[in-house]
Amino acid sequence: MNHLYSSKLLENAVNEFSRLPGIGKKTALRMALFLLKQDEESVRQFGQAVIRLRSEVVYCRECHNLSDTEVCEICSNLRRDRSIVCVVETVRDVMSIEDTMQYQGVYHVLGGIISPMDGVGPADLTIESLENKVAEGKISEIILALSATMEGDTTNFYIYRKVKKFPVAVTTLARGLAVGDELEYADQVTLGRSIVNRIPFRVNSEQ
Amino acid sequence: MNHLYSSKLLENAVNEFSRLPGIGKKTALRMALFLLKQDEESVRQFGQAVIRLRSEVVYCRECHNLSDTEVCEICSNLRRDRSIVCVVETVRDVMSIEDTMQYQGVYHVLGGIISPMDGVGPADLTIESLENKVAEGKISEIILALSATMEGDTTNFYIYRKVKKFPVAVTTLARGLAVGDELEYADQVTLGRSIVNRIPFRVNSEQ
Repeated sequence: MNHLYSSKLLENAVNEFSRLPGIGKKTALRMALFLLKQDEESVRQFGQAVIRLRSEVVYCRECHNLSDTEVCEICSNLRRDRSIVCVVETVRDVMSIEDTMQYQGVYHVLGGIISPMDGVGPADLTIESLENKVAEGKISEIILALSATMEGDTTNFYIYRKVKKFPVAVTTLARGLAVGDELEYADQVTLGRSIVNRIPFRVNSEQ
Repeated sequence: MNHLYSSKLLENAVNEFSRLPGIGKKTALRMALFLLKQDEESVRQFGQAVIRLRSEVVYCRECHNLSDTEVCEICSNLRRDRSIVCVVETVRDVMSIEDTMQYQGVYHVLGGIISPMDGVGPADLTIESLENKVAEGKISEIILALSATMEGDTTNFYIYRKVKKFPVAVTTLARGLAVGDELEYADQVTLGRSIVNRIPFRVNSEQ
């Protein structure tokens, strides 16, 4: 509706905002009117941050994570154990695991998951780069941290077949009851696996 | 959480997005990752649209609506009746009324509403500019199109007192049952006013 906006600049900004995921015209207008009330310098910073993000961010040469430098902060951190590689689907998964503060190894971002339905095959992912890394012989363990879905299982299996000829341990995330779950409400498959793959009981202080 | 982002550029963009109204860190991250997947030129356009919006949009000299030019598209449109002025609170209200396509006059944007609770007095609004316009004698009618709240009523009354010495008709939006409302569910005050301010019955074709 062209008559709606008294300003082409406003209309333009609203159109740009409404292209973002989950943002409709109404929210986009609210954002544009909000920015109009901010001081000019901070709006310029907003615009520049977005432009620089796209033009300057690169993918880490080692792990394919988002990075400001050729090798990312995690890969270049000397306190991280570079012999353990956690294989994840996306950049977001790296953030989720980093947030737990329980992991001191490095990552390998596949950039997706094998999914014939979506037309994603092994060649679309960074699996070859992972294989090369393993072939160099410096990695002792790879942790497969993909989604617990059929696509995740397929990708896990594909990677396992590629690396099993090398002397590397292949592990995967523990599956079972989520912390805080009540037995009554756990799904059958998860509960079944938790029983089959039961672990030695440890008191918390030993962990 | 500083450790969360492997890229300062990403962190920066996420922080900027999360300053927008109603946008949390999670949505902001989704937006930033979405933009990373777009081509560089379209992201540049997005950033520029935002920067230009803030730096180039002005307020119309006549009606105080947002505009790209000194006098806005509505005020400079020769097909609009400049003797009828619709007084509204915000730029958004202009859009709402324009969307109805029922109005051919011009507007006057107050920039708010008299609200002692929020510290907004008459001097914070464009009431003086409205008074000057009326004093010039070229306006035959002003339509008070403010919210049907106590603040709206106060502002209506204030404006009415300011302009009643001039030969100008002062009208206000019709209040009554909303189109589609069932009598049973209308609130008492609205229903009461609808009876008191009843209007002559007209068949639709005469309207």
